Amino acid sequence: MSETGRVEAFSDGVFAIAITLLVLEIHVPSEHGHKLTEALTHQWPSYVAYVVSFLVIGVMWVNHHALFGHLAKVDRTLVFLNLLLLMVVAVLPWPTALLAEHLRDTDDARVAGVIYSGVMVMHAVCYGAIWWYVTHRGHLLHPEVDREAARATRIRFSLGSVAYPATVGLALVSPTAMLAVHGLMAVYYAFNHLAVLGRERLPTSAKPE
Amino acid sequence: MSETGRVEAFSDGVFAIAITLLVLEIHVPSEHGHKLTEALTHQWPSYVAYVVSFLVIGVMWVNHHALFGHLAKVDRTLVFLNLLLLMVVAVLPWPTALLAEHLRDTDDARVAGVIYSGVMVMHAVCYGAIWWYVTHRGHLLHPEVDREAARATRIRFSLGSVAYPATVGLALVSPTAMLAVHGLMAVYYAFNHLAVLGRERLPTSAKPE
Amino acid sequence: MSETGRVEAFSDGVFAIAITLLVLEIHVPSEHGHKLTEALTHQWPSYVAYVVSFLVIGVMWVNHHALFGHLAKVDRTLVFLNLLLLMVVAVLPWPTALLAEHLRDTDDARVAGVIYSGVMVMHAVCYGAIWWYVTHRGHLLHPEVDREAARATRIRFSLGSVAYPATVGLALVSPTAMLAVHGLMAVYYAFNHLAVLGRERLPTSAKPE
Amino acid sequence: MSETGRVEAFSDGVFAIAITLLVLEIHVPSEHGHKLTEALTHQWPSYVAYVVSFLVIGVMWVNHHALFGHLAKVDRTLVFLNLLLLMVVAVLPWPTALLAEHLRDTDDARVAGVIYSGVMVMHAVCYGAIWWYVTHRGHLLHPEVDREAARATRIRFSLGSVAYPATVGLALVSPTAMLAVHGLMAVYYAFNHLAVLGRERLPTSAKPE
Repeated sequence: MSETGRVEAFSDGVFAIAITLLVLEIHVPSEHGHKLTEALTHQWPSYVAYVVSFLVIGVMWVNHHALFGHLAKVDRTLVFLNLLLLMVVAVLPWPTALLAEHLRDTDDARVAGVIYSGVMVMHAVCYGAIWWYVTHRGHLLHPEVDREAARATRIRFSLGSVAYPATVGLALVSPTAMLAVHGLMAVYYAFNHLAVLGRERLPTSAKPE
Repeated sequence: MSETGRVEAFSDGVFAIAITLLVLEIHVPSEHGHKLTEALTHQWPSYVAYVVSFLVIGVMWVNHHALFGHLAKVDRTLVFLNLLLLMVVAVLPWPTALLAEHLRDTDDARVAGVIYSGVMVMHAVCYGAIWWYVTHRGHLLHPEVDREAARATRIRFSLGSVAYPATVGLALVSPTAMLAVHGLMAVYYAFNHLAVLGRERLPTSAKPE
Repeated sequence: MSETGRVEAFSDGVFAIAITLLVLEIHVPSEHGHKLTEALTHQWPSYVAYVVSFLVIGVMWVNHHALFGHLAKVDRTLVFLNLLLLMVVAVLPWPTALLAEHLRDTDDARVAGVIYSGVMVMHAVCYGAIWWYVTHRGHLLHPEVDREAARATRIRFSLGSVAYPATVGLALVSPTAMLAVHGLMAVYYAFNHLAVLGRERLPTSAKPE
Repeated sequence: MSETGRVEAFSDGVFAIAITLLVLEIHVPSEHGHKLTEALTHQWPSYVAYVVSFLVIGVMWVNHHALFGHLAKVDRTLVFLNLLLLMVVAVLPWPTALLAEHLRDTDDARVAGVIYSGVMVMHAVCYGAIWWYVTHRGHLLHPEVDREAARATRIRFSLGSVAYPATVGLALVSPTAMLAVHGLMAVYYAFNHLAVLGRERLPTSAKPE
């Protein structure tokens, strides 16, 4: 396994665990009879938050995969930046549970929503920092990656990152709308963000093992 | 590692975590003396639900493995469909805990049972959608897979999927019987579902790495 | 990755998660001042149970590794037997927490201890069943494994398995002694059980990939 | 996969799970309105403890990786020593939660801080024991590793380990300062500890597979 391999395997582990821990935020009501159905209906924000955060972490994983697909090796700075990124990914079950708990009360949901969106901004910053680092020096990129083209994507990247701070503002207006937007952005990026990186994507078979 | 490899590794992680989180739904009674034995006996639904859900997720993993054994590569649509499948797999500890909590009260157990079976239906739908997608276009299938034979399995697949909605109905009659049926179906599919897919199964050594 | 590879990877995941979930059974006391130190001291059974169960699961993993080191491939029966084994491994955080909760009260500790040792017996039975299955037909064994020698180990295996039911009896006499014995057995098997299997152990490089 | 490979994969799993379980120690306040913001602010020790412990486990993983990069194979003693190391790594979410719970009360924080630093000392001891073991006999080292140079690092290693017991003393003076020091040490070691080991680091491609 190449150096990249073990960092990717460790990152995959963190992504897989964080995404699977999301289920622990959905409570098991102990009410009986009519009240059971009520309690189950009442916690709809938990279901919505689960679905959105699952999609978000899933797409973060896909993009992480795409980014590392451009690299031939890692250095200590990259390992450290990746650790910061994973720190943000692994914390996501917490803002998800916070938002699920408070989504029904608009005032509280604003607080929870700003934190939720804030974590997304932190993820975008970490992800952007890694991409800037690897395209800036280019010493870690796979030899077949077009350095100029890779650098050119940085501007589009930065434009994309503007969307995340905007969701912090949206959380103040409507936390539910903010959650919906994150879900939609995840679906959109599942099919399109990859395209940005993917243009000059290496066939995996070309990667040095 | 091939593209398929990393998606499989991530999926394996989610399956392994979801199956291991099931144990968290079994409570540790703090009662003393005679009441401890009583409390331990009283929570028999937790043990049954643990065993059934463990077998169910285990067999889901085996079948996921079998399906991906036919593929040479993945595209964005497949990665997204697989993410939806994993979302259903990862949620399973929740309906399991819900059913374990309410299995002793028949009325409540019906509600919990319908949700439990409903999640199984969602899994069958996601799994079926992936199989239809890969056999429809065939562009992701391994070159040695017989496309016609693969497509022909779709009808048997769809017949098999009828069983899952039927368990939703069974949950309304007897939630305990429904749980037993899911356990039996898991054992059955462990030995037979694979056979459907397995006929034209590729020796792994033939897979492009 | 060979068939064996993905089953091993999935099993490794379950072992790694079960062993890491053990920490969740150690409570975080919220008492203050003098009472904090008291509460921390009072839960010594949690620390002991953590250490013993960690060693036990760790050695189970080592032996699982040793067993699969003899195999060239897997079939459906083996995958199913392995799933039963993992079901027992994954449940271990529960009897561990149960024993930690009740170890200070001898009567309650007997109940918890019998369950704890009972789970160990179930593990020995599953492990033995897999070894009997693979040595009986021999069709899954690596070509370089001496079939006669492998079969001969079965008697020593069965003798070893007698020790586990004996700990169920010991739990009725002294649950603490039983826990200590499990810890000592784990340390013993870490260095010696492997030797039984390891005699004809294959160099990994000889395994077909 | 080489023997080293499966031990590394299992260890990676434990590191990844322990690091991701840290998030479970951050509570989700159920307060409303003004009190929600207060509760969220009040639990600042949880956020700090999360960040520090995440960095600490992350850097432990990086160093584990570096150490195993020198090995060509493993034996039973190493597997056992590694199991003891993982036992310490996997327990970290507990002292983290303990410290987060008590950091605001200086007296209680001293108790929690001594335990937190004590666990770090245990990690340094386990890590040092593994390094002494593999450099002492040298039979597990990769053929290209300079045995004399590897042995020479042991003195610097031991000097470095003196820092950890010192943090136990610091915990008695100021638990918050102790936590900050652990965070700084993690960042420092992320870039420098590796350098000690890394000098004679093998290119991964030179490792026997």
